Amino acid sequence: MIPEGAIEAAKAAAEAARAAIRPYFRAGVGADDKADASPVTAADRAAETAMRAALARHTPGFGVIGEEFGDDRRGRFNWVIDPIDGTREFITGRASFVTLIGLVEDGVPVLGLIDQPMTGERWLAAGGQIEFSGPFGGVPGCRRRAALGEAELSCTGPEWFAPAQRVAFDRLGRACRRVSWGDNAYAAGLLALGAIDIIAEAGHKPWDWAASVPIVEAAGGTMCDWSGRALRLDAETDGTVLILGDPSLRDEALAILRGDSC
Amino acid sequence: MIPEGAIEAAKAAAEAARAAIRPYFRAGVGADDKADASPVTAADRAAETAMRAALARHTPGFGVIGEEFGDDRRGRFNWVIDPIDGTREFITGRASFVTLIGLVEDGVPVLGLIDQPMTGERWLAAGGQIEFSGPFGGVPGCRRRAALGEAELSCTGPEWFAPAQRVAFDRLGRACRRVSWGDNAYAAGLLALGAIDIIAEAGHKPWDWAASVPIVEAAGGTMCDWSGRALRLDAETDGTVLILGDPSLRDEALAILRGDSC
Repeated sequence: MIPEGAIEAAKAAAEAARAAIRPYFRAGVGADDKADASPVTAADRAAETAMRAALARHTPGFGVIGEEFGDDRRGRFNWVIDPIDGTREFITGRASFVTLIGLVEDGVPVLGLIDQPMTGERWLAAGGQIEFSGPFGGVPGCRRRAALGEAELSCTGPEWFAPAQRVAFDRLGRACRRVSWGDNAYAAGLLALGAIDIIAEAGHKPWDWAASVPIVEAAGGTMCDWSGRALRLDAETDGTVLILGDPSLRDEALAILRGDSC
Repeated sequence: MIPEGAIEAAKAAAEAARAAIRPYFRAGVGADDKADASPVTAADRAAETAMRAALARHTPGFGVIGEEFGDDRRGRFNWVIDPIDGTREFITGRASFVTLIGLVEDGVPVLGLIDQPMTGERWLAAGGQIEFSGPFGGVPGCRRRAALGEAELSCTGPEWFAPAQRVAFDRLGRACRRVSWGDNAYAAGLLALGAIDIIAEAGHKPWDWAASVPIVEAAGGTMCDWSGRALRLDAETDGTVLILGDPSLRDEALAILRGDSC
């Protein structure tokens, strides 16, 4: 059951993020390096501040976990947000960074919103229903593939992998039809439109995947880590994420990532 | 001297490509694999056909070299075109593929147009002048950087490199501030807006770089291959391309790619 006010809260937070982020795009924003060497900009901070205010207004009893300003979790319902997923894309002028808003209930993602502030593309899923709108077309629904060899694999960039993960990813890449790069959670949105079949990432935090889970699942796909474990806020995780548009390819993809002989 | 009718021809070809390509975007287009394993779609072929017709109408005396339908070069002036640069991006629903239209005079690129059919972003350069228009902002002009360590490096994907090229690219990546991936010649457009500082690619054909050279140069940047050679239609080339927003970083970048101790 999606709690009252939650969808309105997510939309209001996305609108607040758009307004905060747009003035900074292609405007010569400098990037600081954070402790983990990922870049953070004034736009990230302005957007998260605006998002937290919008969420507090609409759902005052919920906690918030954000990439920039930390973990204020409390109670059953918690927002898990990332104002700019793909800060690299943002800094380099690509309109493929996204604002991510996930709601978890007892750690389980139940509502997800992915928003691209420049193009106006928006994915919203709650209660197993998905909506998408944007100027370039696209219809929600993951694509079926008869075999991994027909699948388009996507990944943000090879530098996110530890060496053993890179070897596993390359095995998966050879089993798929083609690899394309970039775009973080925007790619999860494209998978939910049937344009990408598999995404494999590493180094992910809950705010990187919480919004995508309800969207991918409502579109007919599935998400887990590279060991097949469900993505839950309080569960053990190694930061790996595997997204499949066609759940029937899951066992084969996991076996290849593990390195089972096949 | 840009010949009469050439700018109109380039714009007409870009419009023709937009009209041909848009119906195919995110519409479940299948991709064939070409001899070199790059994907080609019905949209590529429809767009190149429409572009060739527009160019023949406006500049009937010029030759045309296109990615899909071959080399009809003749005389001093030749169009060098790629209907969809970034077919992988196109196939996976990303609005970062581009239509490329270059004009070479005795092999030297003198006019360039980069067009993104979905967003409507367009870069046009001729006679040392550059124009850019699009819905997300951006002002033409490359960015100065005091050192490579401040530079944003971009590349379409690691699978385009031969093993020794990959080693050289990784050296360059370590010398730069950060690496981002994807986007082919769209990234050259972003470099001409001062959002990216360096691009290094391999496996390029003339239609991959001919449109970018006048745009990057008019914005204050420079392009060459990884040995520092100018990019000319009839010159020897190994398919490598290096693009610098700040020409003062050129010697250092070339030395790192060569592997000079430094």
